[in-house]
Amino acid sequence: MKFEITILGCGSAVPTSKRNCAAQVLNVLERYFLIDCGEGTQYQMRRFGIPYNRINNIFISHLHGDHFFGLVGLLSTLSLQGRRGDMHIYADSRLQKILDFTFKTLSTELTYNVIFHNLYRKEEIIYEDNILTVTAFPVSHRHDAPCTGFLFKEKERDKTIRKDMVDAWKVPIAFLQYLKKGQDFITPEGEVIENSRLTYPPVPCRSYAYITDTLCKDKFLPYAKDVDLLYHEATFGKEFKDLAKKTYHSTAEQAAIFAKKANAKKLIIGHFSSRYPYAECLLEEMNDIFPNALVCHDGDVFAIEQRKRYI
Amino acid sequence: MKFEITILGCGSAVPTSKRNCAAQVLNVLERYFLIDCGEGTQYQMRRFGIPYNRINNIFISHLHGDHFFGLVGLLSTLSLQGRRGDMHIYADSRLQKILDFTFKTLSTELTYNVIFHNLYRKEEIIYEDNILTVTAFPVSHRHDAPCTGFLFKEKERDKTIRKDMVDAWKVPIAFLQYLKKGQDFITPEGEVIENSRLTYPPVPCRSYAYITDTLCKDKFLPYAKDVDLLYHEATFGKEFKDLAKKTYHSTAEQAAIFAKKANAKKLIIGHFSSRYPYAECLLEEMNDIFPNALVCHDGDVFAIEQRKRYI
Repeated sequence: MKFEITILGCGSAVPTSKRNCAAQVLNVLERYFLIDCGEGTQYQMRRFGIPYNRINNIFISHLHGDHFFGLVGLLSTLSLQGRRGDMHIYADSRLQKILDFTFKTLSTELTYNVIFHNLYRKEEIIYEDNILTVTAFPVSHRHDAPCTGFLFKEKERDKTIRKDMVDAWKVPIAFLQYLKKGQDFITPEGEVIENSRLTYPPVPCRSYAYITDTLCKDKFLPYAKDVDLLYHEATFGKEFKDLAKKTYHSTAEQAAIFAKKANAKKLIIGHFSSRYPYAECLLEEMNDIFPNALVCHDGDVFAIEQRKRYI
Repeated sequence: MKFEITILGCGSAVPTSKRNCAAQVLNVLERYFLIDCGEGTQYQMRRFGIPYNRINNIFISHLHGDHFFGLVGLLSTLSLQGRRGDMHIYADSRLQKILDFTFKTLSTELTYNVIFHNLYRKEEIIYEDNILTVTAFPVSHRHDAPCTGFLFKEKERDKTIRKDMVDAWKVPIAFLQYLKKGQDFITPEGEVIENSRLTYPPVPCRSYAYITDTLCKDKFLPYAKDVDLLYHEATFGKEFKDLAKKTYHSTAEQAAIFAKKANAKKLIIGHFSSRYPYAECLLEEMNDIFPNALVCHDGDVFAIEQRKRYI
């Protein structure tokens, strides 16, 4: 029951020898979701053992090059490998124009369909399957590249039947599906057996919020509320608070305050300015505010374990 | 008096964990020339210590992605670093269209001028300064991406004055410039002193030929004739001769035969298919034909030493 993030790149606009441009992969039960795709993302996936032919959905936060210049190379490689399945890309609509123009000019025909989903400047569920939803929400970056955050959240699962209790109360098999959904059981004698006596609550849903390239604002708190893992950009330390504001970025301290307010369980920071060869120095300004914070490195894997049921 | 090549990527269309896509840098007396620019080239330059802000000329052999998908990222990074000097790009004219469209769509204005030089399908000198010429010549690749080879050659230098002889013959200082160019000296008494008695011949010119993504053909021999170093693609071993022909590529054996016919002093091969995790296996088919051949790896540096004068 995997739910884990692999950091492929945690650098910012100017990459360093240790940090590639932005990219991450979320693996939810072996479904792989690519989040941003800076230059060299395909190399990083190879390096860190991500089976990139299994990615069917790519989420691009915004159109600054460090978040998408690796996309054309990745799409080309997948085509060279003969991919057939559709690829869904969620991004600013200008990305479709750029890719279409590039492939058309090169007379390249991909072996598979690319399906674009335009990100509008509003909160919306942009992806949904039987186990997961992805909610997009606008954050506050430069006007030339409006930026979007993403909240990945497992769907609420059914309750689990308590076999011992169901047997004891002789609940008909046909009724079990209703028990799983939360209904109480009424015996032939008219006695109401509360659902909570017949079932275990579902295992808690896991969630991951990705917030990059933005001013740190309280209005994004609802999207990070109680998340298991929050990735928040921290391009700068608090000593560059003014520069962060001017460039529409955040400081590590701001990310920590945000994580605390959101009641996130864990915070990871990235998108570091190249002025920090070792971003661990940013931890100091976070420790007193939100101790459960970590600095990202390329190749780091953050697994969100399945929590026990609340019994 | 450097004249050296750094291999930034020697992979082919599908890169591997050990081989980036195609890119090399030629350093001639601290003038840096970038040859091809596959995805991740800017990372490789950082990794191998190439000061990429000192590159003023970029030569793109052809428009398959593995040879140019790193260009937009490199140009963007240079702009973020505030570059001012002109950047010259020599490439298929469609590249200009793609870059123009991309930057325009993103509302990106680079901090410097990019000057495009279209590569026509003919032999021509495309670059010249006081010490070097670069000759472009068409090779035989797929029709959707016509490919160009490049010959980098030092210019013939002046002869060196033999001070002892010049003093002995009392050659006027004003005449030394003519001696350097090869003129004989005539004494006031009318005696002709041959130039060769008054000068040393110039040091030999160094040269490097770059031939990639092509069928191996004898008609390219003039461009590699007597070169100090020849890079020839060897996507395949001779066991895939038919596949090489079909895909407009070459085998290692063909590259060796070509190097021998061209009388190249040294051959390096690259652009290996991902089916060869260790391309050393290709050396065997070359040894008997052209023993002075080497397999490229990312990060390899091949220095062409200044040869002694022919005295």
